[in-house]
Amino acid sequence: MADAIMFDRIALIGIGLIGSSIARAILRADLTRELAISDASPQHLSEAEKLELGHSFHHDPVEAVQDADLVILCTPVGTYRTIGEQIAPALKAGAIVSDVGSVKEHVVDTLQDVLPAHVDFIPGHPISGTEKSGPRHGFAELFDNRFCILTPTEDASQQAVDRLKALWEAIGSEVEIMDAKHHDLVLAITSHVPHLIAYNIVGTADDLESVTKSEVIKFSAGGFRDFTRIAASDPIMWRDVFLNNRDAVLEMLGRFLEDLSMLQRAVRDSDGEMLESLFTRTRNIRRSIIDAGQETDAPDFGRQHHAETDSE
Amino acid sequence: MADAIMFDRIALIGIGLIGSSIARAILRADLTRELAISDASPQHLSEAEKLELGHSFHHDPVEAVQDADLVILCTPVGTYRTIGEQIAPALKAGAIVSDVGSVKEHVVDTLQDVLPAHVDFIPGHPISGTEKSGPRHGFAELFDNRFCILTPTEDASQQAVDRLKALWEAIGSEVEIMDAKHHDLVLAITSHVPHLIAYNIVGTADDLESVTKSEVIKFSAGGFRDFTRIAASDPIMWRDVFLNNRDAVLEMLGRFLEDLSMLQRAVRDSDGEMLESLFTRTRNIRRSIIDAGQETDAPDFGRQHHAETDSE
Ligand SMILES: NC(=O)c1ccc[n+]([C@@H]2O[C@H](COP(=O)([O-])OP(=O)(O)OC[C@H]3O[C@@H](n4cnc5c(N)ncnc54)[C@H](OP(=O)(O)O)[C@@H]3O)[C@@H](O)[C@H]2O)c1
Ligand SMILES: NC(=O)c1ccc[n+]([C@@H]2O[C@H](COP(=O)([O-])OP(=O)(O)OC[C@H]3O[C@@H](n4cnc5c(N)ncnc54)[C@H](OP(=O)(O)O)[C@@H]3O)[C@@H](O)[C@H]2O)c1
Repeated sequence: MADAIMFDRIALIGIGLIGSSIARAILRADLTRELAISDASPQHLSEAEKLELGHSFHHDPVEAVQDADLVILCTPVGTYRTIGEQIAPALKAGAIVSDVGSVKEHVVDTLQDVLPAHVDFIPGHPISGTEKSGPRHGFAELFDNRFCILTPTEDASQQAVDRLKALWEAIGSEVEIMDAKHHDLVLAITSHVPHLIAYNIVGTADDLESVTKSEVIKFSAGGFRDFTRIAASDPIMWRDVFLNNRDAVLEMLGRFLEDLSMLQRAVRDSDGEMLESLFTRTRNIRRSIIDAGQETDAPDFGRQHHAETDSE
Repeated sequence: MADAIMFDRIALIGIGLIGSSIARAILRADLTRELAISDASPQHLSEAEKLELGHSFHHDPVEAVQDADLVILCTPVGTYRTIGEQIAPALKAGAIVSDVGSVKEHVVDTLQDVLPAHVDFIPGHPISGTEKSGPRHGFAELFDNRFCILTPTEDASQQAVDRLKALWEAIGSEVEIMDAKHHDLVLAITSHVPHLIAYNIVGTADDLESVTKSEVIKFSAGGFRDFTRIAASDPIMWRDVFLNNRDAVLEMLGRFLEDLSMLQRAVRDSDGEMLESLFTRTRNIRRSIIDAGQETDAPDFGRQHHAETDSE
């Protein structure tokens, strides 16, 4: 399999859910000779070592990026500036620097300021994940059949973009090239606003006096529990997403709220026709998502029906 | 198994997802001698017959309820008045009449007006379902380990309530007795408003010009696709829910919107502390729901990762 090697040395900074999934997928396909791993959390780093997720493990990111041909930041986007400043002097000329952050424009601006001109900076974002965090929860198949968006800066060489694209394809993804600003708008509606709404309704339900917490829990199978999944996602990661994609999130949230006002009025006015027509239209989108291979067709997400039998 | 018999004759009006699941669960546990099935849809009725979901099949609900000891309405709540008026003269004295509708107060009022005094009317609502409709998609395990709420009227005899409770327990559910008005408030937050929001965001995404439909579909794995599941639920059923639980829905929606305004302001003001504290608090509710056996602990709902391999 020596001919699968794509980069001699790859450094991953952050070995949580996404970093550890990339590590597993890289090892699965034998895409590097030397996988260097760094994480600020001593616990995650030693967990990663026990799980044999790489060849070397470094508390100090500077050690990890030394001599690396590819460096991927897999930490919350709020950490990028500090990490960028730390590793900048140690980056090899010609190295590719990338990331997996859920926000792109602000991140591109931040890192571009601190990275040296002799590296190719190509931001990325795999559109796949789960609500879990940490190296234990990663898995090699996470990116299979999912999309990864790259938002290369103007300065990045086409050759470098092609190499990074090939890596993501080798770990299972389909790659789309996009402008960073447009990425942020698209993800605001397909990911960030959905998370905001989910966090919000779970918060609302938690706050009520007229309905007890125990009632919310017992009767959550009516739909509410679906929202609790994404509202259980990592707080720091999501705080950083909203702090760094404010404008696009507010724009899409504004659209959502406009539509919700109309829907609220339809409920108030008992406008059955309007309700039925919206509820009919929304069915089709799910069908298209299933047909595009981005969702399961199994009823109820294929949830195990006996909750007690499927604990980890 | 003859001693499992709880009712000599049971009639189910409506043999869709819920009706057919009840039928399967009743047959599984051998709880009746004669299961009579009625549905307005000739196609569903003949499908039910092919699937052997009962002992007799009737286009006319009057035939089905003839001599029945228990009648359960399993149609959209908007159909109740008409069905009630049709079957009222044919109901046997001492029969129990129940339903599975997602709304209770308005339904109780409607049916109570038309049902004869010589039956025990005990509205019900199983808190379990999927986004699919029709007899094909039902399954006997749907109610296992889920709650069923009964909202008996003051006139109903305790003995009748006990008998209906025992039936639901025999088909797998835990029964809670509740006031109809309170039911509607609880379900507004655990089910109706979540559906309204899900329908709404899917509608918003479908309407955008700045983000194409193909982008919404491709990148839906970021969170959006979760919402498409409940937004693919039956349009008629859900229209009827909102038409019949207006006040509680508007009240809970009002609370949701108040909280969302605060969250919107936190995003606008880059209030990272507020965001992080909400996002941390919401994690716990999911944990409680999982611990209560009402949700799977598997990451991503245990979704099959390879969408292409799990089509029906
Ligand atoms: N989760 C998803 O669904 C998903 C999907 C696509 C993209 N992303 C992006 O992927 C990135 C990582 O998310 P994740 O879900 O993998 O999070 P995660 O599981 O929490 O992993 C992040 C890891 O980075 C470590 N870390 C934090 N600050 C650091 C620093 N300054 N230097 C080195 N390591 C540091 C964390 O340690 P501590 O836990 O001790 O802080 C943790 O081990 C984020 O930028 C996110 O936007 C996530
Ligand atoms: N789905 C859920 O998750 C869920 C959960 C709890 C409670 N419920 C409640 O259960 C009830 C049924 O929902 P469902 O999901 O089972 O819906 P469904 O799968 O669409 O089944 C409803 C069945 O009733 C038939 N029907 C409609 N009008 C009728 C009439 N006037 N007389 C006789 N049959 C008629 C329908 O035929 P057509 O299809 O031809 O109209 C269909 O076969 C609703 O009241 C709903 O609120 C649903």
